[in-house]
Amino acid sequence: MAVYTEVSDSALAAFLDAYAIGTLLSYKGIAEGVENTNFFLHTTAGNFILTLYEKRVREADLPFFLNLMEHLARSGIACPQPVRNRAGTALGRLCGRPAVIVSFLEGVSVKEPGVDHCRALGGALAALHAAGRDFAMIRENNLSVGSWRPLFVQAEAQADTLSPGLAARTRVDLAYLEAAWPTGLPGGVIHADLFTDNVFFIGDTLSGLIDFYFACTDAFAYDLAICLNAWCFSADGRFHRDMAGALIAGYEAVRPLEPAEVEALPVLARGAALRFMLTRLVDWLDVPAGALVQPKDPREYDRRLAFHRQARGASDYGRA
Amino acid sequence: MAVYTEVSDSALAAFLDAYAIGTLLSYKGIAEGVENTNFFLHTTAGNFILTLYEKRVREADLPFFLNLMEHLARSGIACPQPVRNRAGTALGRLCGRPAVIVSFLEGVSVKEPGVDHCRALGGALAALHAAGRDFAMIRENNLSVGSWRPLFVQAEAQADTLSPGLAARTRVDLAYLEAAWPTGLPGGVIHADLFTDNVFFIGDTLSGLIDFYFACTDAFAYDLAICLNAWCFSADGRFHRDMAGALIAGYEAVRPLEPAEVEALPVLARGAALRFMLTRLVDWLDVPAGALVQPKDPREYDRRLAFHRQARGASDYGRA
Repeated sequence: MAVYTEVSDSALAAFLDAYAIGTLLSYKGIAEGVENTNFFLHTTAGNFILTLYEKRVREADLPFFLNLMEHLARSGIACPQPVRNRAGTALGRLCGRPAVIVSFLEGVSVKEPGVDHCRALGGALAALHAAGRDFAMIRENNLSVGSWRPLFVQAEAQADTLSPGLAARTRVDLAYLEAAWPTGLPGGVIHADLFTDNVFFIGDTLSGLIDFYFACTDAFAYDLAICLNAWCFSADGRFHRDMAGALIAGYEAVRPLEPAEVEALPVLARGAALRFMLTRLVDWLDVPAGALVQPKDPREYDRRLAFHRQARGASDYGRA
Repeated sequence: MAVYTEVSDSALAAFLDAYAIGTLLSYKGIAEGVENTNFFLHTTAGNFILTLYEKRVREADLPFFLNLMEHLARSGIACPQPVRNRAGTALGRLCGRPAVIVSFLEGVSVKEPGVDHCRALGGALAALHAAGRDFAMIRENNLSVGSWRPLFVQAEAQADTLSPGLAARTRVDLAYLEAAWPTGLPGGVIHADLFTDNVFFIGDTLSGLIDFYFACTDAFAYDLAICLNAWCFSADGRFHRDMAGALIAGYEAVRPLEPAEVEALPVLARGAALRFMLTRLVDWLDVPAGALVQPKDPREYDRRLAFHRQARGASDYGRA
């Protein structure tokens, strides 16, 4: 939760003048999102989100993210739509930062998802993959298997201070995953960060997906593996096979998995868990005293890895 | 900026079930307010603010605050209105904390107010004082002159670590103010914390007042003195006489000051500055490592005190 950048009245007024979105009625900093500064804007034209991109988002990647959101929205995926200013561009600048206004998406993220939420998520994920097939831009996944060893090197010496044996376990995982990582799986645009915060529901109906700032071009089944990690475990590491089965079934109702994807599911799930364990570990060890943001606990993913190491096939993930 | 309390889906749903405010469409933690946890709620019935009261608000004071907001709203003051639940009560409980839903007030707070903002503020402050005259409840101002020495005692030993000579200056101010503090001035309900964050404008028009959680029963002119401090100085301590003159003129256009109030203005302004310097000082010295909230700088009020010490009369504050 954070507002990293304070925006002065005059800077905001000048920025909004470039948009045809009516008169500003209120704006409030939102205590969500650890990467960027977000404001809720209410104007005579409706509700919007104003995002200022902080250091973690590379400015060169923004056209990919913004064009993708426009493309997906045109393809019927409920996601925030970038609002173009009077000059016809979506990407602006405010307080020295790249800044964008997007449409406000109704819905509430669930903190404790159930089987039905997982099934709905699976369907939305497959629809996202299908809608991205004719998106022309490519962004390499810079947090895939090739990035994990450099991340580990940053944290290796201190890893055991967090959890005894973590460094040794990670060395084994890394060696296995670097050797076994699948290639040639069906792929295209993936969300790559579809945690519960980024999926909205109204009542029990999935109302939309947000936060496309890790989206990239990679294997579809890896996106599913990220969701298995993010949605189907309790914080204590307990795996919910019924939720995982519903997630996969919801996905396959829209886009059936190919045999190579089914076979790769355990290694992809183990890799996804390692990816989040490592980025959390680096953040955990790097967090300055007095930081505004409480870093997320890497040990949650260490516990998931224990499950993935013993999984033998897609049926262990509840696939019928 | 802070969300101190995480609210689970099920707890929020159960809480909202008690209110006739439609279906929840979205809610977001607001990165504002250093005392309480605030969520923006959007439902099929409109926009609302959900506040969870954290430790600094005494639960026994909540009926005063909530009844006051209802009273003021009925009297035509634009302020948040507590929403009563189906049982007819405004004060509920959520996650072990007292919790209230209030109506959403449109408007934007100005960070860099000008003369016109100050004039409008003066008028709204006088209207607030007038509207509170027939409010039956009383809440003593527990941050008035009698509280300042106990606050100072907590901070005295460390005060000079923040600013050399601060302890000695404060001793002089305290002795002067305890001797000279006026009694018998016209009084009633005062807001007591009408900083720029708590006053909303749409365009140049004042649209409402929020955050009544310091409201109490005290001298009206002391409220004006708080506003002089909060609105008419730059952070570097520079006094803006034109803004102060407009604030007072705006106030007197609705409720002319009595001669005793005019005479008391310098001592009230000095007292108001000392009150905020002292509470900020105690917070500054008390802030734990890793705190979510950056404490406000007491030195801003030390600089204001330098001005107030040399002021000789209301004309030094721009009163015509």
